[in-house]
Amino acid sequence: MQEQELAISDNDPVLGSQFAIELVRQMRAIDPYGTYDDWPAHKILDPFVLTKERLRELPLVGDPDEIVVARVQAFYNAIAALVEAECGLRATTFFSLSHEGFGRALMTVGKLVVMDRALRDVHRFGFPSASKMKDEADKLLSVALEIIGEHPRVAGM
Amino acid sequence: MQEQELAISDNDPVLGSQFAIELVRQMRAIDPYGTYDDWPAHKILDPFVLTKERLRELPLVGDPDEIVVARVQAFYNAIAALVEAECGLRATTFFSLSHEGFGRALMTVGKLVVMDRALRDVHRFGFPSASKMKDEADKLLSVALEIIGEHPRVAGM
Repeated sequence: MQEQELAISDNDPVLGSQFAIELVRQMRAIDPYGTYDDWPAHKILDPFVLTKERLRELPLVGDPDEIVVARVQAFYNAIAALVEAECGLRATTFFSLSHEGFGRALMTVGKLVVMDRALRDVHRFGFPSASKMKDEADKLLSVALEIIGEHPRVAGM
Repeated sequence: MQEQELAISDNDPVLGSQFAIELVRQMRAIDPYGTYDDWPAHKILDPFVLTKERLRELPLVGDPDEIVVARVQAFYNAIAALVEAECGLRATTFFSLSHEGFGRALMTVGKLVVMDRALRDVHRFGFPSASKMKDEADKLLSVALEIIGEHPRVAGM
Protein backbone atom coordinates (compact mmCIF):
# COMPACT_ATOMS: atom_id res chain seq x y z
CA MET A 1 0.00 0.00 0.00
CA GLN A 2 1.36 3.37 -0.97
CA GLU A 3 1.77 5.96 1.73
CA GLN A 4 -1.13 8.33 1.32
CA GLU A 5 -2.89 10.91 3.40
CA LEU A 6 -5.23 9.22 5.86
CA ALA A 7 -8.88 10.26 5.90
CA ILE A 8 -9.26 9.72 9.65
CA SER A 9 -7.12 11.69 12.04
CA ASP A 10 -5.60 9.90 15.01
CA ASN A 11 -7.56 12.04 17.46
CA ASP A 12 -10.96 11.56 15.79
CA PRO A 13 -13.45 11.07 18.66
CA VAL A 14 -15.19 8.31 16.66
CA LEU A 15 -12.18 6.08 17.34
CA GLY A 16 -13.17 5.89 21.01
CA SER A 17 -16.67 4.63 20.25
CA GLN A 18 -17.70 1.05 20.93
CA PHE A 19 -18.38 0.62 17.24
CA ALA A 20 -14.93 1.73 16.09
CA ILE A 21 -13.22 -0.38 18.74
CA GLU A 22 -15.21 -3.40 17.58
CA LEU A 23 -14.56 -2.68 13.91
CA VAL A 24 -10.82 -2.53 14.57
CA ARG A 25 -11.12 -5.85 16.41
CA GLN A 26 -12.96 -7.37 13.42
CA MET A 27 -10.30 -6.11 11.02
CA ARG A 28 -7.47 -7.48 13.16
CA ALA A 29 -9.30 -10.82 13.27
CA ILE A 30 -9.11 -11.17 9.48
CA ASP A 31 -5.48 -10.14 9.23
CA PRO A 32 -3.73 -13.52 9.04
CA TYR A 33 -0.26 -12.12 8.32
CA GLY A 34 -0.29 -9.56 11.11
CA THR A 35 -0.02 -6.64 8.70
CA TYR A 36 -2.02 -4.46 11.05
CA ASP A 37 -0.15 -5.48 14.20
CA ASP A 38 1.68 -2.20 14.59
CA TRP A 39 -0.95 -0.05 12.87
CA PRO A 40 -2.93 2.41 14.93
CA ALA A 41 -6.75 2.25 14.81
CA HIS A 42 -7.17 5.23 12.50
CA LYS A 43 -4.91 3.64 9.91
CA ILE A 44 -6.79 0.33 10.05
CA LEU A 45 -10.15 2.07 9.62
CA ASP A 46 -8.91 4.48 6.99
CA PRO A 47 -10.05 2.38 3.95
CA PHE A 48 -13.64 2.57 5.21
CA VAL A 49 -13.65 6.25 4.37
CA LEU A 50 -14.13 7.11 0.74
CA THR A 51 -13.67 10.83 0.32
CA LYS A 52 -14.87 12.44 -2.90
CA GLU A 53 -11.33 12.28 -4.22
CA ARG A 54 -11.02 8.56 -3.46
CA LEU A 55 -14.42 7.85 -4.99
CA ARG A 56 -13.45 9.67 -8.15
CA GLU A 57 -10.50 7.32 -8.59
CA LEU A 58 -12.73 4.23 -8.44
CA PRO A 59 -14.49 2.94 -11.54
CA LEU A 60 -18.30 3.27 -11.58
CA VAL A 61 -18.63 -0.37 -12.53
CA GLY A 62 -16.27 -3.00 -11.24
CA ASP A 63 -15.91 -6.31 -9.49
CA PRO A 64 -15.12 -6.06 -5.80
CA ASP A 65 -11.92 -7.74 -4.69
CA GLU A 66 -11.64 -9.94 -1.60
CA ILE A 67 -10.32 -7.09 0.51
CA VAL A 68 -13.33 -4.86 0.00
CA VAL A 69 -15.71 -7.79 0.52
CA ALA A 70 -13.93 -8.55 3.80
CA ARG A 71 -14.35 -4.91 4.76
CA VAL A 72 -18.11 -5.02 4.10
CA GLN A 73 -18.35 -8.15 6.23
CA ALA A 74 -16.29 -6.57 9.02
CA PHE A 75 -18.61 -3.55 9.05
CA TYR A 76 -21.75 -5.66 9.50
CA ASN A 77 -20.04 -8.14 11.84
CA ALA A 78 -19.03 -5.25 14.10
CA ILE A 79 -22.70 -4.21 14.29
CA ALA A 80 -23.64 -7.83 15.05
CA ALA A 81 -21.12 -7.85 17.91
CA LEU A 82 -22.73 -4.71 19.35
CA VAL A 83 -26.21 -6.24 18.99
CA GLU A 84 -24.93 -9.25 20.95
CA ALA A 85 -23.40 -7.04 23.61
CA GLU A 86 -26.70 -5.18 24.03
CA CYS A 87 -29.17 -8.06 24.06
CA GLY A 88 -27.03 -10.99 25.16
CA LEU A 89 -28.13 -13.14 22.23
CA ARG A 90 -26.10 -14.45 19.33
CA ALA A 91 -26.42 -12.30 16.21
CA THR A 92 -25.48 -13.96 12.94
CA THR A 93 -24.66 -12.22 9.67
CA PHE A 94 -25.12 -13.64 6.18
CA PHE A 95 -23.70 -12.34 2.99
CA SER A 96 -24.85 -13.29 -0.43
CA LEU A 97 -22.86 -11.48 -3.05
CA SER A 98 -22.49 -11.95 -6.78
CA HIS A 99 -19.01 -11.49 -8.18
CA GLU A 100 -20.23 -8.22 -9.71
CA GLY A 101 -20.73 -6.87 -6.19
CA PHE A 102 -24.51 -7.09 -5.86
CA GLY A 103 -26.30 -8.96 -3.14
CA ARG A 104 -27.66 -8.83 0.35
CA ALA A 105 -26.47 -8.63 3.92
CA LEU A 106 -28.72 -10.16 6.51
CA MET A 107 -28.52 -10.30 10.27
CA THR A 108 -30.55 -12.71 12.37
CA VAL A 109 -31.04 -13.17 16.10
CA GLY A 110 -32.77 -16.42 16.87
CA LYS A 111 -35.52 -16.69 14.25
CA LEU A 112 -35.73 -12.95 13.84
CA VAL A 113 -34.34 -10.98 10.90
CA VAL A 114 -33.02 -7.82 12.52
CA MET A 115 -31.32 -6.37 9.45
CA ASP A 116 -31.79 -6.91 5.73
CA ARG A 117 -29.76 -4.73 3.42
CA ALA A 118 -29.31 -4.69 -0.31
CA LEU A 119 -25.66 -4.52 -1.28
CA ARG A 120 -24.75 -2.87 -4.53
CA ASP A 121 -21.58 -1.50 -6.08
CA VAL A 122 -19.63 -3.16 -3.31
CA HIS A 123 -16.34 -2.16 -4.98
CA ARG A 124 -17.30 1.41 -3.95
CA PHE A 125 -18.17 0.49 -0.35
CA GLY A 126 -17.25 3.24 2.05
CA PHE A 127 -18.44 6.31 3.89
CA PRO A 128 -17.81 10.03 3.41
CA SER A 129 -16.24 10.26 6.86
CA ALA A 130 -15.61 8.23 10.01
CA SER A 131 -18.50 9.95 11.78
CA LYS A 132 -20.86 9.22 8.87
CA MET A 133 -19.85 5.56 9.15
CA LYS A 134 -20.55 5.57 12.88
CA ASP A 135 -23.95 7.24 12.28
CA GLU A 136 -24.86 4.51 9.82
CA ALA A 137 -23.76 1.76 12.22
CA ASP A 138 -25.66 3.40 15.11
CA LYS A 139 -28.79 3.56 12.99
CA LEU A 140 -28.59 -0.11 12.00
CA LEU A 141 -27.86 -1.07 15.61
CA SER A 142 -30.82 0.84 17.02
CA VAL A 143 -33.21 -0.53 14.38
CA ALA A 144 -32.00 -4.07 15.14
CA LEU A 145 -32.48 -3.58 18.88
CA GLU A 146 -35.93 -2.09 18.26
CA ILE A 147 -36.97 -5.15 16.24
CA ILE A 148 -35.67 -7.44 19.01
CA GLY A 149 -37.59 -5.38 21.56
CA GLU A 150 -40.77 -5.84 19.56
CA HIS A 151 -40.36 -9.59 19.16
CA PRO A 152 -38.23 -10.78 22.08
CA ARG A 153 -39.64 -14.31 22.00
CA VAL A 154 -38.74 -14.82 18.33
CA ALA A 155 -35.26 -13.54 19.03
CA GLY A 156 -34.92 -16.21 21.70
CA MET A 157 -35.20 -14.04 24.83
CA MET B 1 -24.81 -35.31 -21.15
CA GLN B 2 -24.36 -38.96 -21.90
CA GLU B 3 -27.42 -41.09 -22.25
CA GLN B 4 -27.73 -43.01 -19.01
CA GLU B 5 -30.37 -44.83 -17.10
CA LEU B 6 -32.69 -42.41 -15.33
CA ALA B 7 -33.20 -42.78 -11.58
CA ILE B 8 -36.82 -41.61 -11.70
CA SER B 9 -39.35 -43.50 -13.76
CA ASP B 10 -41.82 -41.53 -15.85
CA ASN B 11 -44.76 -42.89 -13.85
CA ASP B 12 -43.31 -42.12 -10.42
CA PRO B 13 -46.24 -40.77 -8.35
CA VAL B 14 -43.93 -38.12 -6.85
CA LEU B 15 -43.97 -36.37 -10.22
CA GLY B 16 -47.61 -35.43 -9.68
CA SER B 17 -46.93 -33.71 -6.34
CA GLN B 18 -47.06 -29.94 -5.95
CA PHE B 19 -43.42 -30.02 -4.95
CA ALA B 20 -42.20 -31.88 -8.05
CA ILE B 21 -44.30 -29.68 -10.33
CA GLU B 22 -42.81 -26.58 -8.72
CA LEU B 23 -39.27 -27.98 -8.85
CA VAL B 24 -39.65 -28.65 -12.58
CA ARG B 25 -40.88 -25.08 -12.98
CA GLN B 26 -37.85 -23.78 -11.08
CA MET B 27 -35.50 -25.84 -13.25
CA ARG B 28 -37.13 -24.64 -16.47
CA ALA B 29 -36.82 -21.06 -15.21
CA ILE B 30 -33.03 -21.34 -15.03
CA ASP B 31 -32.68 -23.01 -18.42
CA PRO B 32 -31.77 -20.05 -20.63
CA TYR B 33 -31.02 -22.09 -23.77
CA GLY B 34 -34.18 -24.15 -23.66
CA THR B 35 -32.30 -27.41 -23.21
CA TYR B 36 -35.17 -28.81 -21.16
CA ASP B 37 -37.92 -27.65 -23.51
CA ASP B 38 -38.72 -31.09 -24.83
CA TRP B 39 -37.63 -33.00 -21.73
CA PRO B 40 -40.23 -34.74 -19.61
CA ALA B 41 -40.39 -33.95 -15.88
CA HIS B 42 -38.67 -37.14 -14.75
CA LYS B 43 -35.67 -36.40 -16.93
CA ILE B 44 -35.38 -32.85 -15.61
CA LEU B 45 -35.54 -34.03 -12.00
CA ASP B 46 -33.27 -37.01 -12.55
CA PRO B 47 -30.03 -35.27 -11.43
CA PHE B 48 -31.59 -34.63 -8.01
CA VAL B 49 -31.40 -38.33 -7.35
CA LEU B 50 -28.03 -39.68 -6.34
CA THR B 51 -28.20 -43.43 -6.17
CA LYS B 52 -25.43 -45.30 -4.42
CA GLU B 53 -23.83 -45.94 -7.78
CA ARG B 54 -23.90 -42.27 -8.73
CA LEU B 55 -22.55 -41.22 -5.32
CA ARG B 56 -19.69 -43.66 -5.68
CA GLU B 57 -18.62 -41.94 -8.87
CA LEU B 58 -18.44 -38.54 -7.19
CA PRO B 59 -15.30 -37.47 -5.34
CA LEU B 60 -15.62 -37.14 -1.55
CA VAL B 61 -14.09 -33.70 -1.68
CA GLY B 62 -14.70 -31.33 -4.54
CA ASP B 63 -15.81 -27.88 -5.55
CA PRO B 64 -19.43 -27.70 -6.69
CA ASP B 65 -19.95 -26.42 -10.22
CA GLU B 66 -22.58 -23.85 -11.16
CA ILE B 67 -25.04 -26.52 -12.24
CA VAL B 68 -25.18 -28.26 -8.89
CA VAL B 69 -25.36 -24.93 -7.05
CA ALA B 70 -28.30 -23.97 -9.28
CA ARG B 71 -29.90 -27.31 -8.40
CA VAL B 72 -29.55 -26.67 -4.65
CA GLN B 73 -31.11 -23.25 -5.12
CA ALA B 74 -33.95 -24.70 -7.23
CA PHE B 75 -34.70 -27.23 -4.48
CA TYR B 76 -35.03 -24.58 -1.77
CA ASN B 77 -36.75 -22.10 -4.08
CA ALA B 78 -39.39 -24.71 -4.87
CA ILE B 79 -40.05 -25.06 -1.14
CA ALA B 80 -40.24 -21.27 -0.85
CA ALA B 81 -42.84 -21.22 -3.63
CA LEU B 82 -44.94 -23.77 -1.72
CA VAL B 83 -44.61 -21.74 1.49
CA GLU B 84 -45.88 -18.73 -0.45
CA ALA B 85 -48.75 -20.70 -1.91
CA GLU B 86 -49.76 -21.88 1.58
CA CYS B 87 -49.49 -18.66 3.55
CA GLY B 88 -49.88 -15.99 0.87
CA LEU B 89 -46.72 -14.19 1.96
CA ARG B 90 -43.49 -13.71 0.10
CA ALA B 91 -40.84 -16.27 1.07
CA THR B 92 -37.27 -15.33 0.25
CA THR B 93 -34.33 -17.70 0.05
CA PHE B 94 -30.81 -16.74 0.75
CA PHE B 95 -27.68 -18.72 -0.08
CA SER B 96 -24.26 -18.16 1.27
CA LEU B 97 -21.82 -20.67 -0.16
CA SER B 98 -18.06 -20.87 -0.23
CA HIS B 99 -16.49 -22.11 -3.44
CA GLU B 100 -15.64 -25.33 -1.59
CA GLY B 101 -19.36 -26.02 -1.26
CA PHE B 102 -19.93 -25.14 2.39
CA GLY B 103 -22.41 -22.58 3.60
CA ARG B 104 -25.96 -21.95 4.59
CA ALA B 105 -29.40 -21.76 3.05
CA LEU B 106 -31.88 -19.49 4.73
CA MET B 107 -35.53 -18.79 4.10
CA THR B 108 -37.31 -15.76 5.47
CA VAL B 109 -40.94 -14.65 5.47
CA GLY B 110 -41.26 -11.06 6.59
CA LYS B 111 -38.88 -10.74 9.52
CA LEU B 112 -39.13 -14.41 10.35
CA VAL B 113 -36.49 -17.04 9.63
CA VAL B 114 -38.54 -20.08 8.65
CA MET B 115 -35.63 -22.27 7.53
CA ASP B 116 -31.93 -22.27 8.34
CA ARG B 117 -29.86 -25.10 6.92
CA ALA B 118 -26.19 -25.81 6.88
CA LEU B 119 -24.94 -26.74 3.43
CA ARG B 120 -21.97 -29.00 3.13
CA ASP B 121 -20.43 -31.10 0.38
CA VAL B 122 -22.71 -29.38 -2.08
CA HIS B 123 -20.98 -31.16 -4.99
CA ARG B 124 -22.69 -34.31 -3.62
CA PHE B 125 -26.14 -32.71 -3.28
CA GLY B 126 -28.89 -35.16 -4.03
CA PHE B 127 -31.33 -37.65 -2.57
CA PRO B 128 -31.45 -41.46 -2.56
CA SER B 129 -34.75 -41.40 -4.45
CA ALA B 130 -37.44 -39.04 -5.70
CA SER B 131 -39.71 -39.92 -2.81
CA LYS B 132 -36.93 -39.29 -0.27
CA MET B 133 -36.48 -35.87 -1.87
CA LYS B 134 -40.19 -35.16 -1.57
CA ASP B 135 -40.17 -36.29 2.07
CA GLU B 136 -37.37 -33.88 2.83
CA ALA B 137 -39.15 -31.02 1.06
CA ASP B 138 -42.42 -31.82 2.86
CA LYS B 139 -40.63 -31.78 6.20
CA LEU B 140 -39.00 -28.41 5.54
CA LEU B 141 -42.32 -27.04 4.29
CA SER B 142 -44.27 -28.16 7.33
CA VAL B 143 -41.65 -26.84 9.75
CA ALA B 144 -41.67 -23.48 7.93
CA LEU B 145 -45.47 -23.29 8.07
CA GLU B 146 -45.40 -24.23 11.76
CA ILE B 147 -42.96 -21.41 12.53
CA ILE B 148 -45.17 -18.97 10.59
CA GLY B 149 -48.19 -20.23 12.51
CA GLU B 150 -46.41 -19.55 15.79
CA HIS B 151 -45.34 -16.04 14.85
CA PRO B 152 -47.81 -14.77 12.26
CA ARG B 153 -47.23 -11.12 13.08
CA VAL B 154 -43.47 -11.36 12.54
CA ALA B 155 -44.09 -13.11 9.23
CA GLY B 156 -46.21 -10.13 8.19
CA MET B 157 -49.66 -11.68 8.49
